Amino acid sequence: MTRKELVHQIISKRTFLCVGLDTDIKKIPEHLLSEASPIFTFNKAIIDATAPYCVAYKPNLAFYESLGVSGMAAFEHTVRYLKKYYPHHFIIADAKRGDIGNTSAMYARTFFEEYDIDSLTVAPYMGEDSVTPFLGYDGKWVILLALTSNRGSSDFQLLTDTEGVRLFEHVITRSQQWAGPDKMMYVVGATQGSMFKEIRRLAPNHFLLVPGVGAQGGSLQEVCHYGLTSDCGLLVNSSRGIIYASRGEDFAEAACANARQLQEEMEAILRQSGILG
Amino acid sequence: MTRKELVHQIISKRTFLCVGLDTDIKKIPEHLLSEASPIFTFNKAIIDATAPYCVAYKPNLAFYESLGVSGMAAFEHTVRYLKKYYPHHFIIADAKRGDIGNTSAMYARTFFEEYDIDSLTVAPYMGEDSVTPFLGYDGKWVILLALTSNRGSSDFQLLTDTEGVRLFEHVITRSQQWAGPDKMMYVVGATQGSMFKEIRRLAPNHFLLVPGVGAQGGSLQEVCHYGLTSDCGLLVNSSRGIIYASRGEDFAEAACANARQLQEEMEAILRQSGILG
Repeated sequence: MTRKELVHQIISKRTFLCVGLDTDIKKIPEHLLSEASPIFTFNKAIIDATAPYCVAYKPNLAFYESLGVSGMAAFEHTVRYLKKYYPHHFIIADAKRGDIGNTSAMYARTFFEEYDIDSLTVAPYMGEDSVTPFLGYDGKWVILLALTSNRGSSDFQLLTDTEGVRLFEHVITRSQQWAGPDKMMYVVGATQGSMFKEIRRLAPNHFLLVPGVGAQGGSLQEVCHYGLTSDCGLLVNSSRGIIYASRGEDFAEAACANARQLQEEMEAILRQSGILG
Repeated sequence: MTRKELVHQIISKRTFLCVGLDTDIKKIPEHLLSEASPIFTFNKAIIDATAPYCVAYKPNLAFYESLGVSGMAAFEHTVRYLKKYYPHHFIIADAKRGDIGNTSAMYARTFFEEYDIDSLTVAPYMGEDSVTPFLGYDGKWVILLALTSNRGSSDFQLLTDTEGVRLFEHVITRSQQWAGPDKMMYVVGATQGSMFKEIRRLAPNHFLLVPGVGAQGGSLQEVCHYGLTSDCGLLVNSSRGIIYASRGEDFAEAACANARQLQEEMEAILRQSGILG
């Protein structure tokens, strides 16, 4: 999906919500466990219930890999279902991959050719040749970890060099030599608050993928105050707050309600900021 | 596997070789492609041929994931085969994972509980809470990326702070607050040459996992000159140089010959250094 198409979706649906499909077999409603594929059945219901209120879905691979072959089958079914019935939703494989060049190239083929997914989260620690194999695909995106939402983000990401430049700033500036804002996004945690201002100084036009609203405690208002660009420039993710809104038989309705509430907040923000007329 | 058990294997087999099972369907001998599971058949033959000359196997997950569900099945079969027939070989899942705490915990359960693998490579970018979920398992190891073998390792890993301390040094020192040399190893590329001296200043006793000998151009002699500890402290990996030694029907014999040659070099080094009497 191109940036233009993504922005078109955001404007026409009045939302920049990404729903995180962090589907944990131990947390889905019990009545689904008798299904042939409980994970896929859960995802399908969540997708059908939330699709009008979001522009993106982000399955985190950890949750599928943890179930071995059957989990990876559920991941494949979920992606195929999205591609078939919701082809205008942007799909993010949250995999945080990154390896030496020939191995990153294998991962790129897996996610971009085999699964035909729009984007992949990538860890920057190994540098340029671990990232560039993901950049050779039209309409496919690298979403590079910059400043993450977790407590440990301060351990290394804030390391400051002799010129006062921090590691996450190096990641953002250096990686702009590898690809522009039509192929690269950055992960910036919603818990980072006013740091969005500094991120926008370095990457004024890039889309940011923002996890950490909801269960992790980040504020949507604060993220948008500093993070919005003239064409939105944000994908804000909620996982647990939506998909586990209820653990009962009404889980899909509850997910729908929470997704709609976030969509309404986002629509108001898009109007206030003049992005929606 | 405990450190004591690993060292016992090294001493009794006179080798510290790790064979990288980076099995690429496009590179295995053609006559295997008619097998029900070409990847597993190839791995099984490589393992049977090289087991006397190595102490560890390191499948890189990228190569299995790239084949989807059938690839992950081949990975599972390979691990089960090793656990059953070669229970004294140390297994490294080269996955370079690392995510927020609850997600890293999912990965830990996958690799350490479901697959019962000895160790996992982990990327440090997200800091403490992305790594510690892997540390709660007896006899299981985290192998943290420190100074990798690829060209891009200089992009961020050599970033120097105001005190002259580089990022990879921070990773090594900070992570020693999370676990000691009985549960943590570091990845240091063989291509880093004399940097091993500096690594040993910071981590005098930790095992180092050393990729990059062979196809990537690192020198075994140089690595050992600076890297050996009194109980060896090194696992040196070769992937392509062993598993693709021949592309013909004699691939297993060729892998055996190349693994044996490395074992002989390693035995000589262990004798010279007095680790073997």
